[in-house]
This record gives sequence, structure tokens and C-alpha cells, in this order.
Amino acid sequence: MPSLSDQDLLRNLGMHRVIEPRGALPQAAWKLDNTPVAFPGETLIHVHKLHIDSASFTQIATVCEYDTERVGRHIMNIVAKRGKMHNPVTGSGGVLVGTVEQLDEDFGKKHHLAIGDSIVSLTSLSWLPLCLKQIYAIHLDRCELEVEGKTIFFRSNPLAKLPGDLPQALVVAALDVAGAPARVATLIHPGQCVTVLGAGGTAGLLTLCALRQRLGSTGQIIAIEYSEKALQDIVALGVADVVVQGDATRPLELVEQVRSACTNQDYLADLTINVVNVPNTEFATILLTKADGRILFFSMATSFTTAALGAEGMARQVEMHIGNGYMPDSGSVALQLLRDYPVLRAIFAKRFG
Amino acid sequence: MPSLSDQDLLRNLGMHRVIEPRGALPQAAWKLDNTPVAFPGETLIHVHKLHIDSASFTQIATVCEYDTERVGRHIMNIVAKRGKMHNPVTGSGGVLVGTVEQLDEDFGKKHHLAIGDSIVSLTSLSWLPLCLKQIYAIHLDRCELEVEGKTIFFRSNPLAKLPGDLPQALVVAALDVAGAPARVATLIHPGQCVTVLGAGGTAGLLTLCALRQRLGSTGQIIAIEYSEKALQDIVALGVADVVVQGDATRPLELVEQVRSACTNQDYLADLTINVVNVPNTEFATILLTKADGRILFFSMATSFTTAALGAEGMARQVEMHIGNGYMPDSGSVALQLLRDYPVLRAIFAKRFG
Repeated sequence: MPSLSDQDLLRNLGMHRVIEPRGALPQAAWKLDNTPVAFPGETLIHVHKLHIDSASFTQIATVCEYDTERVGRHIMNIVAKRGKMHNPVTGSGGVLVGTVEQLDEDFGKKHHLAIGDSIVSLTSLSWLPLCLKQIYAIHLDRCELEVEGKTIFFRSNPLAKLPGDLPQALVVAALDVAGAPARVATLIHPGQCVTVLGAGGTAGLLTLCALRQRLGSTGQIIAIEYSEKALQDIVALGVADVVVQGDATRPLELVEQVRSACTNQDYLADLTINVVNVPNTEFATILLTKADGRILFFSMATSFTTAALGAEGMARQVEMHIGNGYMPDSGSVALQLLRDYPVLRAIFAKRFG
Repeated sequence: MPSLSDQDLLRNLGMHRVIEPRGALPQAAWKLDNTPVAFPGETLIHVHKLHIDSASFTQIATVCEYDTERVGRHIMNIVAKRGKMHNPVTGSGGVLVGTVEQLDEDFGKKHHLAIGDSIVSLTSLSWLPLCLKQIYAIHLDRCELEVEGKTIFFRSNPLAKLPGDLPQALVVAALDVAGAPARVATLIHPGQCVTVLGAGGTAGLLTLCALRQRLGSTGQIIAIEYSEKALQDIVALGVADVVVQGDATRPLELVEQVRSACTNQDYLADLTINVVNVPNTEFATILLTKADGRILFFSMATSFTTAALGAEGMARQVEMHIGNGYMPDSGSVALQLLRDYPVLRAIFAKRFG
């Protein structure tokens, strides 16, 4: 028999909501019980917005040919089938915004919460039981849905209260990808060369700023981006030393472009951060990194085996990290970057405002 | 136009052998040209044995209900379709043993090779064009095939010459999984607690010895294994402090077992090494690791998204590494362990001799 503390562990993780397969943790489970009522140890949230993970939303939008009605049906379908917004193709989720409706006492103390507080989830949607009543609007350009729904937080699921001094849409967008900027400071030293793949995306822009704060006026930041429009934002932000427009799914061409752009300097990075939202970018990432360098894969489209076998086949010793979305800082690093870099905030406002 | 050095890079990586999709690197490609003739820059190897990656072989053997004839047809089929032994389900390969038939001059100098030398590939089979003429025998118990075939090495593909003082079968088995033991020394410090999941497998046993050499008489090694038989080998080896028989696909039960086994000590590891050959062990790995600890996923059955979102959902900051099979030591650490630990060598001889 499990001891009392194990029963608590089970309940804190949300095991009692798993329908199938039995014994799986909620995130790994195929289906959760999404009954919109708080059982003991649970907190009930009234959901207003879903901000779908970029890899997941791109996959859904592509399958639905960017037709909002079809996207809506597709998402309602996933939630009905699984009891959570957990894309079965990409395996990823996203974040939600809501207000506290019923509050577990322990959870409330831990996060300084009260009934009615506005919150953002810092756990993936793939972990949270979701009951979706209606979709009011879908914003294809920012992977966002306005909805009417209910979700359950277990005691182990992190969240953040919405700060008062920043617009909600910007906060949500930043917190969704706050893991990458929160991590980079521990992985580099002043003077080093860092490359960011997918630098023009939300995660990429935040990461560029976090890197610049850490490097100061030293080192070299190489920003790589596929989209012309996003590239202009990188240039406007002005924290990257080298900006390259290129396609990370075509590794050899990209290496040549980066090499040409870094005329007088080594083009290989001590640290490469991958925040691209399409698959098949592992090889480019490895080829752009020093043999004894490090890689932080933050893209949910990363393939474990492709990365592992790619490094082996190319005879590169590079240290590769799986980006971990959990932030002990509850996203405060990312939000502070929005305050410290007015241009970053303006770009976010333009994209998500 | 690519410069001369880019043409070399392309050829060194084997791009000229990629049939589809165009522009993909050989490992990522669906199909390679397996014409058994050495073009400029290539080295032709006469292949005698295939040692299939454990995750791949287990998947194939399971689908074929452990019927050797069906396993053989299945493997011939994959090679015919793809021009390489690259399991499309697991994405993984394995290693091969052969003799040098035609030698590229540069490659020969780099690896001190001569025509007729016996070699083991240190790159995944998923990278190497393979032409399989016949399968003579299949050893289900050790994922091994005796074959007649030809393969091509590109200049970037690592390999090792067979050493004279160790039996070939043991060397092949050790080199196939030499990445994990080669890496651990850089990831821990004396006095720390390390857990190995799948500790009774080939990679697991080597890793236990590498850890013990690094820790000396300090620290704590927790060995976890599913199979009763493999567990006995761990006990016989005598380098682990705590040995637990448990199922890593049932995370909560396993945590309870490990906690019970570590009566007076913390059961959470500073470093956890996952060398399990089945999927769905990411959660157990995370739950058994300290919140500020490290994980080295060496199992090819690891899911990137499950690991990333699992750590996030459980609010664990843990640093997770993708095991990189490339070894600048060309596997010498693993081979030296076979010399340093007679019991390890005896276990390998029993399994592969």
C-alpha cells in the first residue's frame, strides 16, 4: 500500500483525473476526466483564453488550411476526445488565461491567490483537464482562442498571477515561452558566441535580449530567422551582432549563409538555442555549433533520435539539452525583459496587442 | 555557388548518396543510394555482422513475434526500401562489423587503417548506405545478425579498429553503447548520488562501472532494472550501493520502491542516467531526480516532448541532456572498463561470447 505521502503525491500530480491509460501521469495520459468541479486539492479556473503552442497551432492550422471554422472544430474535437487541449500530433499544448473560481487552500497560500484573481498557466495545457463550452474567436496570427471553459489545477501545477503594469496579451505571450530566456544566463559566459535559430519568434526575441543582458557589450550574437517580417523586428531590436535570413531545414545552405555573414569571425557558436517552430532543424543546429559547444533545444518539434544520431553521425561531441519549460522564477525574467527593452515591448504590442 | 570547402563538406557528410528527400543529410534521409562501390572520398567495407540498436531490435522482434525468419525478412525489407538499416518506427540504427575492402587515403590516415583491417562502426547504421546480400543467422538474445553485405563510410563517419586483446563480440557490444560510460565522468563529482535506469543492460553495466571509477568509495549508486536475470548481473558486479527491481514505465510505484530501498538516505539523484530500451520512462526519470539535478537520456526510446512537458508539469527545474553517441575517445573508455572489471567482462562473455 502506498503511504499517506504517496497518496498526496498522486493527488498533487492529478493522478485521480486520469481515465486512460491507467497509471499514466496526466500529461502522458490519452484522456483526462474534465468534470468542471473542484475535488479536494484542486483549484477550479474559469478559462477565457487559450494560447496554443506554436508548433501545435501551426500543425492544426496547416491541416485545416487556415480556415478558422475548421481550426475551431478541430480544437473542440481534440478537447472532447482527450479532456485536455493536447495535440496528438505534436504532443504539445500551450497556456491559458482565466480567473480563480474555486481555490484549494494550500495552492492559494503557495501562489498568494484569492478568488477572482486573473492567472496564466505555467504548465502545459497537455497537463490540465479542460472543459470547453464555446469558442468565441480564433486569432490565427497569434495562435490564440477566446473561449468559455473551465480547467482544473492540481497542487503541483505552476501558474503566475497577471502583473498590473503590463498588458495581458503581452504577458501571456511572454510567459508561454519564458523558459528559454530564463535559462540562457546560466549557460553562457561573457565573450562567447551564441546563435539563436528562430530568433524572430516570441521566444527568440526574448532570448536575444536575455543573451545581450548577460553578454553586455562582449561576445557575438548571431540571429537566424526564416521570415522576412520577423527579421525586420530583429533588426529593429538591435541586440544581435549578425542577422541572417535563412532556412534551418536546409542545413548546408544555412551554414554557408552564416559563414558568409561572419566575415572576420568564427561562425561556430559556443551555445546554440533552437526556438524554431518547424521540424527537421536538428542538423543545422548541430552544424552551427562548435564541436565542444552546447545546444539548447527549446522547439517542441525537436526529434530526440534525430538530434542524438545526427551528432553521432557528424562526429560532434556537442552537449545537447532538452529545453525545460519550468521556471522557478515564474516567468519574471521574461516579464522584466519586456520592461527593460521598450522596443521588445513595442514588437510584442504590435504582434499581440 | 558553394565554395570548394562546401563541396568537400557535402561529400564528407555523404550528401551525394541521398536519394530522397533531396537536400537531407544521410541520417535524416528516407532513402540512400547503396551501390556497393566506393566513389571518391568513400571507403568500402565488407560487412559481416549487424548489431541492431536495442530499441529498434525489440520493436522489430515484437512485431515479428520473435520469429527469426520474419525478423530477417523485416530487416531485409527495411534495407531494400531505404538503402540502410534505419528502423522507420524507432528512428534508430545500430553498429556493424566488417573488413576494409577499398580505402580512401584521407580516411585511412585519420584512422590508421589498411586494407583488410577489421573495424566496428561508431556511427549509427542509420547514416551508412548498406547493401545486404544475405542474412546467415539471427541471434535474438543479443540483437545480432550474421550477414553478407557491403557498406560505405564517408569521411565524417567515425569507426574503431578492433583491438587484439578482447573478443570481437564483447568489443562490438561495448562500443555500441560506449557513449554513456564515456560521458558520465564529466557530469558528476565524488560524493554525489547517481541513479541508473536500465542498469542491467549493456549500457547500464558499463555505466555503473564508469560511475564507480569516478566516485571511488564515495557517493551512492542506485541501480534500477526490470529483468530478474539482469538484476543478478548487477548484484554480481557489486559496484551499485542500492539495487532495485522495478518498472520505469510505472513511475509512482517505482518511486515508492526506490524510497523504501534507500532507508536512511535521500533517494533523489544528483544525476540520473536513462538507458532503458522501452518508451514511457521519462516521468520516472524526472521523479527520481533532484529538482536541481541532471538527467542524461541515452535511451533512443526517449520522447523529447514528454520529457520537456513532464518536467514543466511536475514543476522540476532539472537539466535534461540528450545522450550523444559520438565519442572522441573512439570507445576506449568502455573497452578499458572491460579490462578493469573482470566480472563485467565475464557478464559480457556470458551474454555475447
